Amino acid sequence: MHTQRSSFRLGLVQMACAPDPNENLEKARWRIREAAARGAQLVCLPELFRSQYFCRQEDPDLFALAEPIPGPTTEVLSSLARELGVAIVAPLFERRAPGLYHNSAVLILPDGSLAGLYRKMHIPHDPLYFEKYYFTPGDTGIRVFATPFGPVAILICWDQWFPEAARLAALAGADLIVYPTAIGWHPSEKQTDGAAQLDAWLTVQRAHAIANGVFVAAVNRTGREGPPGSDLEFWGSSFVADPFGRILAQAPADKESTLVVECHRPLIEQTRRHWPFFRDRRTDAYHGLLQRWLDE
Amino acid sequence: MHTQRSSFRLGLVQMACAPDPNENLEKARWRIREAAARGAQLVCLPELFRSQYFCRQEDPDLFALAEPIPGPTTEVLSSLARELGVAIVAPLFERRAPGLYHNSAVLILPDGSLAGLYRKMHIPHDPLYFEKYYFTPGDTGIRVFATPFGPVAILICWDQWFPEAARLAALAGADLIVYPTAIGWHPSEKQTDGAAQLDAWLTVQRAHAIANGVFVAAVNRTGREGPPGSDLEFWGSSFVADPFGRILAQAPADKESTLVVECHRPLIEQTRRHWPFFRDRRTDAYHGLLQRWLDE
Repeated sequence: MHTQRSSFRLGLVQMACAPDPNENLEKARWRIREAAARGAQLVCLPELFRSQYFCRQEDPDLFALAEPIPGPTTEVLSSLARELGVAIVAPLFERRAPGLYHNSAVLILPDGSLAGLYRKMHIPHDPLYFEKYYFTPGDTGIRVFATPFGPVAILICWDQWFPEAARLAALAGADLIVYPTAIGWHPSEKQTDGAAQLDAWLTVQRAHAIANGVFVAAVNRTGREGPPGSDLEFWGSSFVADPFGRILAQAPADKESTLVVECHRPLIEQTRRHWPFFRDRRTDAYHGLLQRWLDE
Repeated sequence: MHTQRSSFRLGLVQMACAPDPNENLEKARWRIREAAARGAQLVCLPELFRSQYFCRQEDPDLFALAEPIPGPTTEVLSSLARELGVAIVAPLFERRAPGLYHNSAVLILPDGSLAGLYRKMHIPHDPLYFEKYYFTPGDTGIRVFATPFGPVAILICWDQWFPEAARLAALAGADLIVYPTAIGWHPSEKQTDGAAQLDAWLTVQRAHAIANGVFVAAVNRTGREGPPGSDLEFWGSSFVADPFGRILAQAPADKESTLVVECHRPLIEQTRRHWPFFRDRRTDAYHGLLQRWLDE
């Protein structure tokens, strides 16, 4: 008999990141404590929270920021998870082997054990987001992890633009897709395109919630990083959407914030019964999705 | 050398449908004339525009509304297309053989010829939308048709909830995905859920535009049909979104309306260069999309 609780409380830690990795770990620790004190059962940190967003530049010295998994950060956070009885999503710059690095996230269970690892599958590489230099594309595939609070998929940042990733998470049984993120404005574009960029980001993720009948959460950093001319203004705006795409809570763009949001699990099946997309998928006609382009 | 024009003008005919099919054809004809007079080059009609939305009930007599393609409606509209020099998307209740019917749409070119046929792939069946009774799921697959105004994919209504369909259209080279639609409120739900339903419908389609860097248009009917207690209030709100998901024009919920919208084709490539999702799709990891559910 399945005795999963009918709701879970999700904590999102939207933080600004300092140049010193230890400072960021300390901040994450007290923010997790704060979320747990407010009832959060699963607490998510932003992408690569241990450092500033180093992918603004291509510099071989910056590989020194990487660490193994398990490693020093998971040791600290496992201990904290056990102490507080919460699950933690910890996005890390993973050193898998000398010369082999990933943009990863580990799910830590309330007993301190590691439920597993997700390695970012879709890697961007664009002005000031030079990720292909640092990260080998993930080989984990899209994964769903069992937790005491329900099955959870972790996807990371650029993944959020790919409907395929969200669909695979839902097909694998996720109740919740959480997207640790580091996305912001190029200050020179903010005036003209900033509002449309933020709106597109919200829209595409709310659509994943709608098309898949799942809860979707994005956890972004905030603050400005880098010298003028090559700086990024991270747009915060971390949010949780319900399976109908309604935003349940949202952080501001420009402030650190800890959100704790109750997610009512029966809403998933209720939504899917009313708009039963999974009943009607044409799996016989989707083989083209495995192609790069249909130019034959 | 490719000499396609840099923009095209799209016409959307949002209409209310009367019980008499001839009245609807007459209205469609003058609305197409109106759109052409305002410069439209490709004019789209709503789903099943020849009749009221008969799928509110399951009645074998209503199969009499079906017609062959080519047939009486395409004959009339081909002649009109040739006269006006416009392309027309005509959604029809197709009688393919005795006992075999589809929810289809035909694309008529400005010379009056039929570019081809799309048969709705995803068929709903829910309270007052009893489509599985009438329509065999399409066997055309997702198709893109060449027109003098660029490559166009036609998808129909329920298809709009499936990211797979929009992706396949984009991979096949569509500049524009047009969704003839018949969607509305159950009046009893409108007060509580109506705004969220309409917003979800807009959001999921805008997300197709964003995720695929294409223009997206939805053409809905308006007006109330059926007796109290089993009536539907079609929500109009036909719109065009650009490749960044921005709504370029939108019709009201409760009025007939003809939209004519200029779509600037270079925006497609410009958008995709800035957010290059097609570069980064993980086609090696999407095989799960061909499964009904990943419960193995």
